[in-house]
Amino acid sequence: MTNKLVYFFGGGKADGNAKMKELLGGKGANLAEMTNIGLPVPPGFTITTEVCTEYFQNRGKYSPELEEEVSEALKRVEELMNAKFGDAENPLLMSVRSGARSSMPGMMDTILNLGLNDDTIQGLIAKTDDERFAYDAYRRFVQMYGDVVMGVRPEGVDDIDPFEEIFDKKKKAYGAKYDVELPAKALKELVSEYKTMIAERAGQKFPEKPIDQLWGAIGAVFSSWNNDRAIAYRELNNIPGDWGTAVNVQTMVFGNMGEDCGTGVGFTRNPATGENEFYGEYLLNAQGEDVVAGIRTPRPIMELEKDMPEVFNELNDVRKTLDKHYREMQDFEFTIQKRKLYMLQTRAGKRTGFASIRIAVEMVREGLISKEEALRRVEPEQLNQLLRPVFNLKEKKRRMDEGGLLAEGLNAGPGAASGQVVFNAPDAVKWAKDGKKVILVRIETSPEDIRGMNAAEGILTARGGMTSHAALVARQMGKVCVAGCGTLDISYAKRQIAVKGKIIKEGDWISLDGTEGQVIEGALVTLPSEVEQVLIHKILKPEDSPVFGLFNELMTWADAVRRLKVRTNADQPDQASVAVLFGAEGIGLCRTEHMFFGGNRIDAVREMILSDTKEGREKALAKLLPMQKEDFIGIFQAMGHRPVTIRTLDPPLHEFLPHDDEQIAELAKDMVISFDKLKAKVESLSEMNPMLGFRGCRLGIIFPEITAMQAKAVFSAAAEVKKQGVDVHPEVMIPLVGHVKELKLQREIVIKAAEEVKKETGVDFDYLVGTMIELPRGCLTADQVAQEAEFFSFGTNDLTQTTLGMSRDDAGKFLPDYVREKIYSRDPFAAIDREGVGLLMKIGVEKGRTVKPDLKIGICGEHGGEPSSVEFCHQIGLDYVSCSPYRVPVARLAAAKAALG
Amino acid sequence: MTNKLVYFFGGGKADGNAKMKELLGGKGANLAEMTNIGLPVPPGFTITTEVCTEYFQNRGKYSPELEEEVSEALKRVEELMNAKFGDAENPLLMSVRSGARSSMPGMMDTILNLGLNDDTIQGLIAKTDDERFAYDAYRRFVQMYGDVVMGVRPEGVDDIDPFEEIFDKKKKAYGAKYDVELPAKALKELVSEYKTMIAERAGQKFPEKPIDQLWGAIGAVFSSWNNDRAIAYRELNNIPGDWGTAVNVQTMVFGNMGEDCGTGVGFTRNPATGENEFYGEYLLNAQGEDVVAGIRTPRPIMELEKDMPEVFNELNDVRKTLDKHYREMQDFEFTIQKRKLYMLQTRAGKRTGFASIRIAVEMVREGLISKEEALRRVEPEQLNQLLRPVFNLKEKKRRMDEGGLLAEGLNAGPGAASGQVVFNAPDAVKWAKDGKKVILVRIETSPEDIRGMNAAEGILTARGGMTSHAALVARQMGKVCVAGCGTLDISYAKRQIAVKGKIIKEGDWISLDGTEGQVIEGALVTLPSEVEQVLIHKILKPEDSPVFGLFNELMTWADAVRRLKVRTNADQPDQASVAVLFGAEGIGLCRTEHMFFGGNRIDAVREMILSDTKEGREKALAKLLPMQKEDFIGIFQAMGHRPVTIRTLDPPLHEFLPHDDEQIAELAKDMVISFDKLKAKVESLSEMNPMLGFRGCRLGIIFPEITAMQAKAVFSAAAEVKKQGVDVHPEVMIPLVGHVKELKLQREIVIKAAEEVKKETGVDFDYLVGTMIELPRGCLTADQVAQEAEFFSFGTNDLTQTTLGMSRDDAGKFLPDYVREKIYSRDPFAAIDREGVGLLMKIGVEKGRTVKPDLKIGICGEHGGEPSSVEFCHQIGLDYVSCSPYRVPVARLAAAKAALG
Repeated sequence: MTNKLVYFFGGGKADGNAKMKELLGGKGANLAEMTNIGLPVPPGFTITTEVCTEYFQNRGKYSPELEEEVSEALKRVEELMNAKFGDAENPLLMSVRSGARSSMPGMMDTILNLGLNDDTIQGLIAKTDDERFAYDAYRRFVQMYGDVVMGVRPEGVDDIDPFEEIFDKKKKAYGAKYDVELPAKALKELVSEYKTMIAERAGQKFPEKPIDQLWGAIGAVFSSWNNDRAIAYRELNNIPGDWGTAVNVQTMVFGNMGEDCGTGVGFTRNPATGENEFYGEYLLNAQGEDVVAGIRTPRPIMELEKDMPEVFNELNDVRKTLDKHYREMQDFEFTIQKRKLYMLQTRAGKRTGFASIRIAVEMVREGLISKEEALRRVEPEQLNQLLRPVFNLKEKKRRMDEGGLLAEGLNAGPGAASGQVVFNAPDAVKWAKDGKKVILVRIETSPEDIRGMNAAEGILTARGGMTSHAALVARQMGKVCVAGCGTLDISYAKRQIAVKGKIIKEGDWISLDGTEGQVIEGALVTLPSEVEQVLIHKILKPEDSPVFGLFNELMTWADAVRRLKVRTNADQPDQASVAVLFGAEGIGLCRTEHMFFGGNRIDAVREMILSDTKEGREKALAKLLPMQKEDFIGIFQAMGHRPVTIRTLDPPLHEFLPHDDEQIAELAKDMVISFDKLKAKVESLSEMNPMLGFRGCRLGIIFPEITAMQAKAVFSAAAEVKKQGVDVHPEVMIPLVGHVKELKLQREIVIKAAEEVKKETGVDFDYLVGTMIELPRGCLTADQVAQEAEFFSFGTNDLTQTTLGMSRDDAGKFLPDYVREKIYSRDPFAAIDREGVGLLMKIGVEKGRTVKPDLKIGICGEHGGEPSSVEFCHQIGLDYVSCSPYRVPVARLAAAKAALG
Repeated sequence: MTNKLVYFFGGGKADGNAKMKELLGGKGANLAEMTNIGLPVPPGFTITTEVCTEYFQNRGKYSPELEEEVSEALKRVEELMNAKFGDAENPLLMSVRSGARSSMPGMMDTILNLGLNDDTIQGLIAKTDDERFAYDAYRRFVQMYGDVVMGVRPEGVDDIDPFEEIFDKKKKAYGAKYDVELPAKALKELVSEYKTMIAERAGQKFPEKPIDQLWGAIGAVFSSWNNDRAIAYRELNNIPGDWGTAVNVQTMVFGNMGEDCGTGVGFTRNPATGENEFYGEYLLNAQGEDVVAGIRTPRPIMELEKDMPEVFNELNDVRKTLDKHYREMQDFEFTIQKRKLYMLQTRAGKRTGFASIRIAVEMVREGLISKEEALRRVEPEQLNQLLRPVFNLKEKKRRMDEGGLLAEGLNAGPGAASGQVVFNAPDAVKWAKDGKKVILVRIETSPEDIRGMNAAEGILTARGGMTSHAALVARQMGKVCVAGCGTLDISYAKRQIAVKGKIIKEGDWISLDGTEGQVIEGALVTLPSEVEQVLIHKILKPEDSPVFGLFNELMTWADAVRRLKVRTNADQPDQASVAVLFGAEGIGLCRTEHMFFGGNRIDAVREMILSDTKEGREKALAKLLPMQKEDFIGIFQAMGHRPVTIRTLDPPLHEFLPHDDEQIAELAKDMVISFDKLKAKVESLSEMNPMLGFRGCRLGIIFPEITAMQAKAVFSAAAEVKKQGVDVHPEVMIPLVGHVKELKLQREIVIKAAEEVKKETGVDFDYLVGTMIELPRGCLTADQVAQEAEFFSFGTNDLTQTTLGMSRDDAGKFLPDYVREKIYSRDPFAAIDREGVGLLMKIGVEKGRTVKPDLKIGICGEHGGEPSSVEFCHQIGLDYVSCSPYRVPVARLAAAKAALG
């Protein structure tokens, strides 16, 4: 490695800057940036992410170059601070922190107060003139180092923390009720007892030399990149495992040297609502981890103005500087040591979907960023938060009037959620898997809880503020969260909450209003989101909903930018109408088989299946014709002038028949045929691999009368609505085409039907005939297929199944492990596998357009509503994506972001 | 159309030649060629196959250009023959025959004596001075035209032929026992009665104008390209449906003008045995169709020398000229009219596999053709005929001594076959479908019977000679056939054969020796083919078997020419040994799962599947390890220095468990676990689409201990046989790889096992680790996969299933129709679908070799033994094909042919 390994910052100048996140991690890059723009940052240095990668490749060894660069940087810090690392008289103390490219709050490890030993402690005592403080720092350091670096920690859920055990004994011995009551002597004893215990449990002595401590800490931080919770976090957030983390080694500053010290976290804007106001929390006489970990409930930042007005003003200036400099909402950490402000971190702040949209839109209004930048800032999935149900306010009021309000806390994650109470993360996961809705209730949450938080409808904590772990993660996951409800008496052992004289037990229903910060007894009924209330139900006026206003403004910008059209997958008029209100520009996939199930239609379908002759099938199909026609009329009316792509019958016929003997017997009776005959038919239709069986256009090839009936229904409906004045555009889509001749045969039938209907009705109408491209062979021979197709629509569900040889129904046995083992970085059924499926799509597009340069091509698989897949569709030149109605806004935004590149 | 539509031949010069088969069809091209080399061909002209294609595209209409060219050509014939078409005094009569690119004997229609009507008949009578002959020609013409052009024929199997009905009545009326006893008057009446009947049944009068007759006949011949039997024949023989047929219009010559006339068929060499001798048959006073149709049993050609020595000598000279000129065995038709010889057709003769090889090899010896040409001439599949079982001669002699010989006939299709007697083609098809072996017994066969002939083990007829339909088709299909057993009294009505006072009923067993022409009562035991007797069983010396000599010589030539290596798919030492004797150069696919079923192994496999822990699985696998090792030792010993590719476990685990409750209960008892637990396991392993499920390397990814055990077994075995002095070359193959990381993970396990075994045993050995490419994604990302692979082997069975989205198990519901409808020209599971699957293979080869230019690539799907697929594998640059042991010679020859291009 010949690159620079260590980047220094301090004294108003830094080697790095904010753009170097890949190399320095987010924290390191921003420490450099803040140093460069003159903010008060304690000096230090950053070891690059490249070193982390090397560290794993070399199985934990460092290069000599690294040791040299670290020692040089350390020297520069010593000079600036006028102190010496390991010096008994004037010791320099350091913090060692992780810092990945993308923020992973609390997932990796940190060591504070590094550099203390039995010699340097004397210097710290002398410098601070506070023996108790010094020994408190020392015992915290030993505890942290013992845990993080030397692996001394509880083994399993039932084990007691060995440090806490010793600490509690000590308190008893000294008759102390609170930690702060322990004298310096006790803390000194703790240091020694901790070290003895560590040596026993770790089989290794606690390192006394500060430089050994430093290298141990650096290694531990690197290693923490691959701890369980970090891996889980990355999985949930699609962060690649090979990025690695940087390590930041920085001069310690102390927020816990007395009441003129403190530490806190601030946001340049409100991360829950997005409002442009100073938002944050602080604790006096505390170290930074105390705020984030949620152990003590911190105070709102505005109160600092009373405690230390000068510091508050300086801090408020800093927040304005940061917001303007970064043109982005910042989440920053600071420490006040003896009334002097130090900035320890800044980064783009996690925010709710609400806040994300509000901040983006308002920054445009403030002239800070462009519309395009605003679009770049909002993650398409965040729009879903605007579409969450809200409580019915009347019902909520009634419940609260009846005494249903259990507690109030911080509105840490907006939204409405009801669920059954569980008290730990594994239960949350298990109950959710069983289909239950759960509210995860914790005294405070920790990084270990994230899988459970993800599984829960909402999160409720008794401790911790807006910047506590629970609040932070909930915000990021978009979960409903009420945090810091101090009045709740939560007992894990009894699995209950005692509050207001009531007992809420595990499994009881509660409701959280995360927007207001309220906890209500029982399950509350919900209403659609404000956006839906405006758009769909028209029970709220646009001007009465700022939420809708923001949504609408953003969507307008997105529509101006995007090239991809957005259609919807819908097969009912009401679905179609909703999709249009959400901005759908057509139907990309109308499945006709769903129409075969309703009411007595299934009887006719079964009659058709059971017919042995073409005549018999045609007779049964004739009964279906008027019903299918009615279906299409409804859909055409809902969609108006927008194109409607209708797929001919796709599923294997056995899906329309019962499978167990009892149901077969019943149906045989209904249909007045023998049980044996029906059973034989069911068996003859059963398949080894139905996904690869007698379905799709194969049905229409063997039974052309089915396609003929469906085409006739489509065109009869089209003629009828055309007469009503609707400029209808049906597009008939033939599924599962692998060979151009399949399409040719089916197309002939469709065209014949269209001509017949035109003749019969005297109405002329436009229509297209195209195909779903959902088999590898369809892609590979797209140049041939295109000769018979007026459009292509990629069916990426089936294309993924065939290309990967992976049945979606059966992949559960191995696919989760595959994603965990990083064989596929994402579930290929969720996001398009670009290297495999995506390559076939590219081949399909290219070959198709060699024959017809203007061939209209879309996608109607479920990937059509997934942002990274939408981006890919844009890149390979598709004309449209199609997704379920509620995904349409997401797809519109994703399409705009794709167009911005 | 601006091309020439009509090609004239006659008077020693022709517009066309033998190379123009695509345009003129085989018959037309060879009539031109024979004319050009001075053989006596009656003049005429050929309408091209392009006209046929146009005819179908224009729905049966002709262009004015065609009418013009036909009329011109007709004029030239009239000039040469000095007669006029439609002339009442000197009428020219024509024949109209089909003629496709590839011979389709008897499948399409023919009209003779065209040009006769109530006027021209007078001219014919005058010219021949034979009223009876003239009216016989006339009534034959009316009958043929009525049937072929006007569609008057029996409707359904039970209908009586309307012409025969009238004919039989007429015979009764005239008290005639034989046809020849009817006087001219009666024949004249028949003409008139036929015409009346035709007008009634066809609703249209019989055309009197010769030119109308001509166009009707031309259209009928074109249309006959798409009659049922022609379509069936093309399906069986892989002849594309879009080739079309030419039409040959030629001056009539008559073999039925008296005893100085005749007609016959000749072969330049013996088509059954391949011997270089004049072979053929003739009938005096007969029309050509009489010989081919098998209605009268013709006489051996050598007898003609006695009847007409001069004509015989001329004909024998013609046969030598043809054999030498074409450098290929010819099958020709001739007519003798008043002692003058006319050649009506020549074409490459159909022959048995025996004959094909013998002729090819002997023509090389005679200096007529090169070795390469000989290789080109033999179809790889024909080799199978040399590998057919033969009767145990001792047993056959004993049976015959006991009076078991029922009859003797012509040895029309060599080989030995036993089966149950059936009397019609539909029964043959049905019985064969039910798994029965059948012998199709017919008085004579007709083109309608070909599906039944194909389904039967052997064919036995009472009438017809070596060139009859039965003999011809049987020869071509490679069926065992005894023809013309005149002593058999076959009754379709009673479904029995009466012979030698015995009654053989439907369902009784008989045996046919097609090499000797014998029919024996009962089922005879068979022995392996001579080739196997020499190669494998060593019970016959090579020098005692000319058959083996020919086989061996051809194989030697093939091996000298081919570039592709040929391996075998085998998982038992005995299979492996047989394959080596057949020339296999390694094992391309050794499936390990078969080894999991034998004896008590399945118990250990089940124990592994039912273990919930890795330890439990490892314990069970440890039991399998020594058994797997023994398997591999046996295979390595059998294969010696040749490479052996071993595939790790592939099938879904549920294949190792029972599925119905009874068996589950039994197994639960055996394994001492609860029924419920076992049932739950079986259910949890069951899959919607097992083909796309938890199988292949997915098993080894989730349960790495399985791969580890298998790799250990492979390498322990390798070390052991290496110690024994065998230069072993194991190649471990990972199945169902879609992503390079799958291969990487599995490869690491295999390499680790190899290193361990080397260390434990102190034996060093070479080995490779590679992958099966059987998923589209494997092909598409082959450049990545190649980074972890030392070889690729295409698994085209699964690749076809996934690329086409077609389950082999389920395709029965539509694939036969697909092939019939020409959607796929051949079953893609039989021959590689080049456009789809083949393109993916090409991509895989190209991408793989961008990374490793010398990457070894083979194929181990069942396509590896199919000639056209072998050709494709050669074309895209594979290194080897692998197939079942008995297909190895076929693959060797196919590989040689591919190399010849």
